[in-house]
Amino acid sequence: MGSMWGKNIKVSIFGESHGEAIGMVLDGVPSGVTLNLDNIRAMMKRRAPGGQAYSTARVEKDEFEIQSGLLDGVTTGAPICGIIRNTNQNSKDYSELYVKPRPGHADYTANLRYKGFQDVRGGGHFSGRLTAPITLAGAICKEILRGYNVDVAAKIVKIGGSTDSEEWEGIIEQAKADLDSVGGVVECTIDGMEGGIGNPMFDNVESVISSFLFAIPAVKGVEFGAGFQVSDMRGSQANDAFYMDGDSVKTKTNNCGGILGGITNGMPIVVRTAFKPTPSIYQEQDTVSLKDKKDTKLSIVGRHDPCVVVRAVPVIEAACSIAALELIMSKGS
Amino acid sequence: MGSMWGKNIKVSIFGESHGEAIGMVLDGVPSGVTLNLDNIRAMMKRRAPGGQAYSTARVEKDEFEIQSGLLDGVTTGAPICGIIRNTNQNSKDYSELYVKPRPGHADYTANLRYKGFQDVRGGGHFSGRLTAPITLAGAICKEILRGYNVDVAAKIVKIGGSTDSEEWEGIIEQAKADLDSVGGVVECTIDGMEGGIGNPMFDNVESVISSFLFAIPAVKGVEFGAGFQVSDMRGSQANDAFYMDGDSVKTKTNNCGGILGGITNGMPIVVRTAFKPTPSIYQEQDTVSLKDKKDTKLSIVGRHDPCVVVRAVPVIEAACSIAALELIMSKGS
Amino acid sequence: MGSMWGKNIKVSIFGESHGEAIGMVLDGVPSGVTLNLDNIRAMMKRRAPGGQAYSTARVEKDEFEIQSGLLDGVTTGAPICGIIRNTNQNSKDYSELYVKPRPGHADYTANLRYKGFQDVRGGGHFSGRLTAPITLAGAICKEILRGYNVDVAAKIVKIGGSTDSEEWEGIIEQAKADLDSVGGVVECTIDGMEGGIGNPMFDNVESVISSFLFAIPAVKGVEFGAGFQVSDMRGSQANDAFYMDGDSVKTKTNNCGGILGGITNGMPIVVRTAFKPTPSIYQEQDTVSLKDKKDTKLSIVGRHDPCVVVRAVPVIEAACSIAALELIMSKGS
Amino acid sequence: MGSMWGKNIKVSIFGESHGEAIGMVLDGVPSGVTLNLDNIRAMMKRRAPGGQAYSTARVEKDEFEIQSGLLDGVTTGAPICGIIRNTNQNSKDYSELYVKPRPGHADYTANLRYKGFQDVRGGGHFSGRLTAPITLAGAICKEILRGYNVDVAAKIVKIGGSTDSEEWEGIIEQAKADLDSVGGVVECTIDGMEGGIGNPMFDNVESVISSFLFAIPAVKGVEFGAGFQVSDMRGSQANDAFYMDGDSVKTKTNNCGGILGGITNGMPIVVRTAFKPTPSIYQEQDTVSLKDKKDTKLSIVGRHDPCVVVRAVPVIEAACSIAALELIMSKGS
Repeated sequence: MGSMWGKNIKVSIFGESHGEAIGMVLDGVPSGVTLNLDNIRAMMKRRAPGGQAYSTARVEKDEFEIQSGLLDGVTTGAPICGIIRNTNQNSKDYSELYVKPRPGHADYTANLRYKGFQDVRGGGHFSGRLTAPITLAGAICKEILRGYNVDVAAKIVKIGGSTDSEEWEGIIEQAKADLDSVGGVVECTIDGMEGGIGNPMFDNVESVISSFLFAIPAVKGVEFGAGFQVSDMRGSQANDAFYMDGDSVKTKTNNCGGILGGITNGMPIVVRTAFKPTPSIYQEQDTVSLKDKKDTKLSIVGRHDPCVVVRAVPVIEAACSIAALELIMSKGS
Repeated sequence: MGSMWGKNIKVSIFGESHGEAIGMVLDGVPSGVTLNLDNIRAMMKRRAPGGQAYSTARVEKDEFEIQSGLLDGVTTGAPICGIIRNTNQNSKDYSELYVKPRPGHADYTANLRYKGFQDVRGGGHFSGRLTAPITLAGAICKEILRGYNVDVAAKIVKIGGSTDSEEWEGIIEQAKADLDSVGGVVECTIDGMEGGIGNPMFDNVESVISSFLFAIPAVKGVEFGAGFQVSDMRGSQANDAFYMDGDSVKTKTNNCGGILGGITNGMPIVVRTAFKPTPSIYQEQDTVSLKDKKDTKLSIVGRHDPCVVVRAVPVIEAACSIAALELIMSKGS
Repeated sequence: MGSMWGKNIKVSIFGESHGEAIGMVLDGVPSGVTLNLDNIRAMMKRRAPGGQAYSTARVEKDEFEIQSGLLDGVTTGAPICGIIRNTNQNSKDYSELYVKPRPGHADYTANLRYKGFQDVRGGGHFSGRLTAPITLAGAICKEILRGYNVDVAAKIVKIGGSTDSEEWEGIIEQAKADLDSVGGVVECTIDGMEGGIGNPMFDNVESVISSFLFAIPAVKGVEFGAGFQVSDMRGSQANDAFYMDGDSVKTKTNNCGGILGGITNGMPIVVRTAFKPTPSIYQEQDTVSLKDKKDTKLSIVGRHDPCVVVRAVPVIEAACSIAALELIMSKGS
Repeated sequence: MGSMWGKNIKVSIFGESHGEAIGMVLDGVPSGVTLNLDNIRAMMKRRAPGGQAYSTARVEKDEFEIQSGLLDGVTTGAPICGIIRNTNQNSKDYSELYVKPRPGHADYTANLRYKGFQDVRGGGHFSGRLTAPITLAGAICKEILRGYNVDVAAKIVKIGGSTDSEEWEGIIEQAKADLDSVGGVVECTIDGMEGGIGNPMFDNVESVISSFLFAIPAVKGVEFGAGFQVSDMRGSQANDAFYMDGDSVKTKTNNCGGILGGITNGMPIVVRTAFKPTPSIYQEQDTVSLKDKKDTKLSIVGRHDPCVVVRAVPVIEAACSIAALELIMSKGS
């Protein structure tokens, strides 16, 4: 319970940061789709450490091996399993994490949930590294979405409180210099979804997408269209007026983010995701010793991104691609 | 597909605004719980039209009839079905809705999804009236949560852009006078959940709660703890430092909203939900005629709340109660 | 947990034998289907007590009231809720059931599961009466299946060990005279399902159908095609040879019951269901007193069918109709 | 859709017979359980070709590699992924299978379902080889069940129509000599399940177990307790009389197979599964050419078990172990 998602397109994510391998199983994909593995590798690279501007210099090779579901690069319809081997992990002494939980991390709650048996090395199953198989699953779905003329593209819209992209590098550098970290917001657009997809009530478009997005580590908020800002508007401003564009019904604005009553209206789906700042910072922090039941201090070592938002962009794109395919595949139902 | 939710506690919502009845089935409840029906009725009344300050004068009787699952006021463990009869609906001519969709409403998308066969009278299955059975299901769950010492309480934190509660009545009155509407934000706190509940990855606390919240009409954003604001913070500010409170581990702040790595940490769960302004406004609006495929105008008549946020408070409380019970019941798993 | 079924077509069953009402919610039905309510009533009547040959003289009125999902007899696409009021129940003293469980009934296991809070009157949620809402849901699905040219028909093939239909009435009469009961086997054929529906592994045709059939009280076995008998055959005899019938691929025999590798092959689906004899018999039986923890005797009174198989025929037909529609609706996925 | 199962314990099966690897992900296992890998290997060996009496001489190495979820042999609570590499497959020309489907196999239906893109080599995802990861998942569950004092044991009760175990070897040899094959029946007992587990209606014990069993290739029937035979009995004979055994409630007979009303009664769960004879036989068979749409003949070559029942025993044990753990884990709910 916990690491499988979906009704029509099902994803199973497995692995721990310092275990043998991490990976995913993707079930329910249509047969006969040619996957461009170069595109998939490119998306994986955008997420991998060292693959972006502003990000850590640490280099991980996120080379995946497809185990099943593909024959000569074409989907067979059977589940696709992809594996990413963990290599060169530096599993130094993590035993402190069992007793001194890092603020903002899952150490404390994982310990409650798994009674001390969780793999804490590198964050274990809670590690941001698990976004690699999510990205792999999403990159495959994104390839499949081409056949439906659907494109998914994410971008950063805010870092460290600033919406000015020219300031972002400086903000991250300054946070790093201050032994601190920053968060941000990623916006994703799903373009080309036909109208009429989704459901009222529980299997609505927003619930499907957000249920996947909140599975990504560090996500604390999800909003569609004008989102929280729409709650400040008046109805006359918020309502998206319909008009005819040739034979197509469109809306003049898109405050609803392409979704009305849980169902797509044919306009682009727009979703924004808020990431908290990287919890791993180099400043000394207050925590407790679970062994002694006493207050204590903790200093985190190792290399950590001062801002995960940059590498999160392809992860969000992947999550939205999986959710979009799930919604499309539910249509026959 | 669409109107059933949950894995351990399952809710089925049915009904259309102007049909025979609306109602819910709640499955998976523990046996042997005495339900205080007066509490449940009080929560229903808080949602019913005419039951609150700032809200419409229209009075609906949301009297529910329990059909099953209760014996002498005590749960039997069998599914609880509750029904609310629709009375006195004024089913005047709604045929215009089929051809001239209201901006901000589901008329257009419902028409695509259900090919013109949807019941449009009063919004049909998309009506805000369907929040009555959600409230009923949630009020029952809230009663059950008492046995786990869990309390769920929601409150308005913003209306029409203002966080000052003294301004809210005036803001709503002014919107009404302007033939317009306003939205707002509701904050809900789930207090008393023990730590260690939830899961990493997909069945995390945020995904479970948000998947229910986004099923409520007019919701466009959901955030936990400091939410979108946390994305503007630095890690040193955002991280909630642990400390010992007697034998209990607590955090000095609660920016994470009681959730780390998808699992409760024992602090209150805090979630905020953004509501768009009521889409039904009395100003003339631009829309299209689906019949003629031409641009046209639409004027909405009838009585409508200029602000749904007030009546949404118990609905949010209900949704969070159902989600909280789902999470608690998943614990054995 | 327990009383909802399905992924594409979802059914929720609620009610206790002597509660206010029993009923069902059917979610995921396509919009725009005209339901012939007379057909549905006729199917309900076949299940109702007093509606068949060889069955009890006790007459129950199983009149259903549709609460939602239908507008002028046409499905809207929203969930269909149907309710059957319980009338004239003779809720005499059932308290003995709490302490002296009836052999072959669920009294003992329900008591363990629901800790004494279950409604024991008339069997509560475990009552065979709950097959009425199953029949209602199935009758609706059967109507919808017409649009797919699929027909579902069940018949008795064995009663009291005899496959000779002319003996059945005598066998039942004799059992009744002996204060005893008999079981039997019902065969159901789903005709007209196109080939290629279903899945390998877990969502295969057999698993979908059998998971519903085993939910019907008194069912202890399910087999497809030649079933248990096929296990006695040799491969050369069991294999269904393919041949061309015009442009259609058919099989000369149908030992596989229309299913190969979990997927339909276009031949009729054939499934047989074994019913145990009615556990309510008038002979004195050995049981225990749960209160005293001692062996004791039990005599059952009241009116009971000496053979439930006759009334089970429409229930099986209903179950197979729901499962068939679920399978068809999964096809788009 | 298709290759994931379960609500509390979730299993994902992937792989094709001649692909890179086959494997499984098992999610929802409790943390802190020490797995005896020797026991697991022994169970795998019982299923592997060449590991049993009466079975093919062909030897496959079913060595599995655990990728995740285990730390020093102890479960971490994260998903367990296990992989079995495919080695030495002799992928000779299988193209004939696309056009001349083998009777009794899934060639024809897979072709309809996956439109010719399925991997037909060695049966692809439909291959009996996929029972290896099922066995791996089940062997892990069986280890976990020890902690609940539950034991699962399967045995053959019938081969080629005979219940006399001394005849079985001769029956299989004769079938082989005749270029034919035989089927049989496997009985499995789940011992030690406490009473009160399971549910009325849809998540009953029989539905959970049978939904997994029917996913095993060649299974055409499932029955519990006295099963189809109970339908020939009278109630006075079929009803299992309760008696006190010290402080425990037991039944004198076990015709219900340990299940009443879908819920365990504390007696052993007994389930029998009917296997059709191996569809691969060496006799020439009638089939069709899908390309020419004409009747034709087919001769199957390669090495095939004349009776799969022997190797099916650990697979059944595995399936019942997974289902038993699923049921136990649902108890908290």
